[in-house]
Amino acid sequence: MKLAVDAMGSDCYPVPDVAGAVLAAREAGRGDSIMLVGDEGRIRAELEKHETADLPLSIVHASEVIEMIDRPAQAIKSRPDSSIVVGMNLVKSGAADAFVSAGNTGGVLAGALFRLGRVRGIKRPGLTTLFPLPTGPVVLLDVGANADCKAEYLHQFGLMGSAYAERVLGKTSPTVAILSNGEEPGKGNALVKEAYGLLHASPLNFIGNIEPKEFVTGVADVVVTDGFTGNVAVKLAESISKMLINMIGDQIRASPITMLGGLLAKPAFRRVKEQLDPFKVGGVVLLGVRGVVIVAHGRSNDVAMKNAIRQARVAVEGELLVTIEQGLAAYEPARGGNTQE
Amino acid sequence: MKLAVDAMGSDCYPVPDVAGAVLAAREAGRGDSIMLVGDEGRIRAELEKHETADLPLSIVHASEVIEMIDRPAQAIKSRPDSSIVVGMNLVKSGAADAFVSAGNTGGVLAGALFRLGRVRGIKRPGLTTLFPLPTGPVVLLDVGANADCKAEYLHQFGLMGSAYAERVLGKTSPTVAILSNGEEPGKGNALVKEAYGLLHASPLNFIGNIEPKEFVTGVADVVVTDGFTGNVAVKLAESISKMLINMIGDQIRASPITMLGGLLAKPAFRRVKEQLDPFKVGGVVLLGVRGVVIVAHGRSNDVAMKNAIRQARVAVEGELLVTIEQGLAAYEPARGGNTQE
Repeated sequence: MKLAVDAMGSDCYPVPDVAGAVLAAREAGRGDSIMLVGDEGRIRAELEKHETADLPLSIVHASEVIEMIDRPAQAIKSRPDSSIVVGMNLVKSGAADAFVSAGNTGGVLAGALFRLGRVRGIKRPGLTTLFPLPTGPVVLLDVGANADCKAEYLHQFGLMGSAYAERVLGKTSPTVAILSNGEEPGKGNALVKEAYGLLHASPLNFIGNIEPKEFVTGVADVVVTDGFTGNVAVKLAESISKMLINMIGDQIRASPITMLGGLLAKPAFRRVKEQLDPFKVGGVVLLGVRGVVIVAHGRSNDVAMKNAIRQARVAVEGELLVTIEQGLAAYEPARGGNTQE
Repeated sequence: MKLAVDAMGSDCYPVPDVAGAVLAAREAGRGDSIMLVGDEGRIRAELEKHETADLPLSIVHASEVIEMIDRPAQAIKSRPDSSIVVGMNLVKSGAADAFVSAGNTGGVLAGALFRLGRVRGIKRPGLTTLFPLPTGPVVLLDVGANADCKAEYLHQFGLMGSAYAERVLGKTSPTVAILSNGEEPGKGNALVKEAYGLLHASPLNFIGNIEPKEFVTGVADVVVTDGFTGNVAVKLAESISKMLINMIGDQIRASPITMLGGLLAKPAFRRVKEQLDPFKVGGVVLLGVRGVVIVAHGRSNDVAMKNAIRQARVAVEGELLVTIEQGLAAYEPARGGNTQE
């Protein structure tokens, strides 16, 4: 398996990007190789800091970089030799099986759409996160690719998310739900109500609407929502968690006794942080484009990058793309059938 | 001031409802009175458990009850002698200045629309919560009255929320923002983008879009959103907080040392809980109907009910309704001006 990794992606590129690729290369199986995409000189200098002898690492030069502040679509079109575009081209030509980048999410999204295109039949790719819960990660999409969605997109998100939960997380007949403001079938906004009907009629293991209180129990393996609500939800969960942890920290530091208590309880706090660590699972996946594309967090460190690369490997091994294509093919006739009614 | 309180509202009615009214009556000023609305026999029996001599409490009999499981609009129409409808009638006739209920939120909303109607010019009332943050409560609306919104509604939510922050929370020139998936003016879904233009052109102290990470800092006094996103956001924040507290508790109980630490740190946890206690501020307010209507949480205890009644009193004292009407009048010409351009 050949994996392409953007060396110029993260906020501190190329340091964690290259270090993560080195860690991943040490984990790699026989026949696997990792291509670092970006400025050859800088990558080479970075690689020299590590022990890389005999590791299956190579460099694919790309002279340009798309920065976090760049306007995605514009940058992709005006910088054909950027590491993102070069990485996508490697996937398109078959030289790489997947591309992993910690760069500008919009840039990766635009690059994937522009260079790889959508899976035949898929209306909109969905940015898919593995939301960390005590019961394990939940597949949540869309978390930002499509601020405005049609019911048909949510239906397809369910299909793609289900394929992902099955092939990458190893779930059998994953449960699929819609994030809503109420559980009953009639609840939700107009989009949710319409998507409910489509998902209910689909062959997916659809369990209906779930409210946030059910969401956090992990009752659904896959949760679909529009990209606006999904993005706000993911960011809100992160912000509320941080706020709460900070509030507890402040109150613990308010007296010597609570401070001693906090010190003794520290291992408990550390374990909670570990359980919810978004870096443990890797990055977000762009489902619905013709290639395996993983977007790691801009703040990724070397371990987070390594995990994102592993996530790409599992997706390729699980034949995620074929599963989505086949799932879509299986559901297309069903749609045809509905039309005949 | 005369306040009507639903005695048959909360999950455990009439116990906390009556007890809360008794607490509120003890706090009441000269000339204030509280009417308990509901089954006279049950209220009387409940009142006998308290020391109520000389308290300005009276009973207004209502023979029917709208339960939590009832379908709101249907129940309101078929039960004209329910405590919710009778309470609304008291406000409509001027016999009461406000109505407080811990009952079925949809029922209160339907009752208010059906019996009181909307403030002239207001397209949709907004269910408004005071979201607890370390920096103080933030006015957030809509949190559930309108799952599907037009930009115009969000605009009016800004106006009503601003009036509320000014008159009830005592803020001067409250800052107003839209909850969004990005800060820049061009970010958001189609609704947010359109509402941005309307709010930007309004005389409100509009500070633009905010993401959840800014929301939790309290940078905006008033945050507007559609009722679907708002409802999901409030429920998600609650669920994530509970989940995190439970996770920390579980990990603390995992070893004797962390357990000792947790015991010593307990006062810190208690203070955080107090800071975020939704019962401290009272209930949600239905802004945009012709009357002051507060919906307390179904799980309210006596103190929560007392706080919701106090919230109603402050809203009446602050002439909230007149402020909204005047604010709307002031902004109507501005709209006319825009149309002429």
